[in-house]
Amino acid sequence: MMRIDDPREARAIIRRGEYAGHTAAVARDFVQGNLCILPRDYAMEFAAFCQRNPKPCPVIGMGTPGDPKLPGLGDIDVRTDVPRYCVFRDGELVDEPSDIMGYWAEDLVTTVLGCSFSFELPLLAEGIMLQHIERDTVVPMYHTSIACTPSGRFSGNMVVSMRPLSPADAIRAIQITSRFPGVHGAPVHIGRPDLIGIADLMKPDFGDPPAIGNDQIPVFWGCGVTPQVAVKKARPPICITHKPGSMLITSIKNADLASF
Amino acid sequence: MMRIDDPREARAIIRRGEYAGHTAAVARDFVQGNLCILPRDYAMEFAAFCQRNPKPCPVIGMGTPGDPKLPGLGDIDVRTDVPRYCVFRDGELVDEPSDIMGYWAEDLVTTVLGCSFSFELPLLAEGIMLQHIERDTVVPMYHTSIACTPSGRFSGNMVVSMRPLSPADAIRAIQITSRFPGVHGAPVHIGRPDLIGIADLMKPDFGDPPAIGNDQIPVFWGCGVTPQVAVKKARPPICITHKPGSMLITSIKNADLASF
Repeated sequence: MMRIDDPREARAIIRRGEYAGHTAAVARDFVQGNLCILPRDYAMEFAAFCQRNPKPCPVIGMGTPGDPKLPGLGDIDVRTDVPRYCVFRDGELVDEPSDIMGYWAEDLVTTVLGCSFSFELPLLAEGIMLQHIERDTVVPMYHTSIACTPSGRFSGNMVVSMRPLSPADAIRAIQITSRFPGVHGAPVHIGRPDLIGIADLMKPDFGDPPAIGNDQIPVFWGCGVTPQVAVKKARPPICITHKPGSMLITSIKNADLASF
Repeated sequence: MMRIDDPREARAIIRRGEYAGHTAAVARDFVQGNLCILPRDYAMEFAAFCQRNPKPCPVIGMGTPGDPKLPGLGDIDVRTDVPRYCVFRDGELVDEPSDIMGYWAEDLVTTVLGCSFSFELPLLAEGIMLQHIERDTVVPMYHTSIACTPSGRFSGNMVVSMRPLSPADAIRAIQITSRFPGVHGAPVHIGRPDLIGIADLMKPDFGDPPAIGNDQIPVFWGCGVTPQVAVKKARPPICITHKPGSMLITSIKNADLASF
């Protein structure tokens, strides 16, 4: 566990190969991003996939072909600045290196997607309790019947995360997260899991089962697993992501993602 | 002048080659988009340029290589559905055809950017008078000293449009346009043109000179001329845009662009 508040300092430690663990407690005020590196011809279709499906796939940074820098997100080199990576070939995990210097190539393009961590903080800050954080479990996530708009080789149904909230908190949470379109934005659904193809809330497809109080309703947000499922299905010759939990730490403050 | 309220019907007429004029009065409730078609390798860098500079370059639609369809924006074929196009070779205008069937190629990619027309309507609807509309002139636009974040071969300073408003209307306009990030969103500057490199408001670089009342302040929004300047500078072997005033009519309602 690394405890560093400054994102630049945290990245320097990671860059030197001195930390390859989780980033949950690192630079808490700053946006952490999901990384997806693809060959140029896949990246173009993936960019359109994200543009067409911004709720599950909110883009907060894009590289250009062969350039490992991400201007706008900080002094970042995506080849070294993530604690641990996952390398997929034809959709299958083949390596989990702590840097990708050996994999980087001139035709690779980086996409960085926002994650729900950045919208949970303002919810907590306004006194909305989030069950999975209180209980220290993983937020429950579900496959749905909501089809994403396809783009070339990328397609699939939306995956959602669910947080049980009181109706009053649900309304406030809709208002708050509407201000953060860069990290999934407003919920995609509320109250009736059966309407989006979820048969049993107690059996999430990812994460831990929730408890829904009698005074609570389920609130569903687009989830970053959606693009992962789409990428796996597209089976690109190479795809490099962060290892779950070991994210890209940016120099953008969470607060700066607010659209107003 | 074509007077049609239904965007699908308007596109059908344009597609048949029966209308090649301006779209200002056509399907007023629906979003009209700026078109920019580029070869795949330029389009990838342009996508990152737009992602990095969303205020002047708000993307509302992206195609995939070789595909003239734009799912999400309506039943569109970008080769035929714009009244008149501009074709640039190496940055120079070479043709103004009414369709681009003969220019379309497998490696071309379409980007559609939102335009200020969609945010002016909600301003007018809330009783904010816009001078250039009242006087039937073209909104004044200015080169600024605000550098865009570059992306590969795309770079340049931001171009802004300016609307003089009373301070109270300026505040309300900031609130209203903040809800429309897909069509330039909130202003980028207010009150002090000298701070962004504008020496004389009465000498715009594009559009008509404004009149600024004693009770008014200038309010500046990111402008869609910014990406045009960046594209011209990049000198791609081919670039196809709409002819100014003859835009792509989408099936998205202006109201549906509101982020909340």
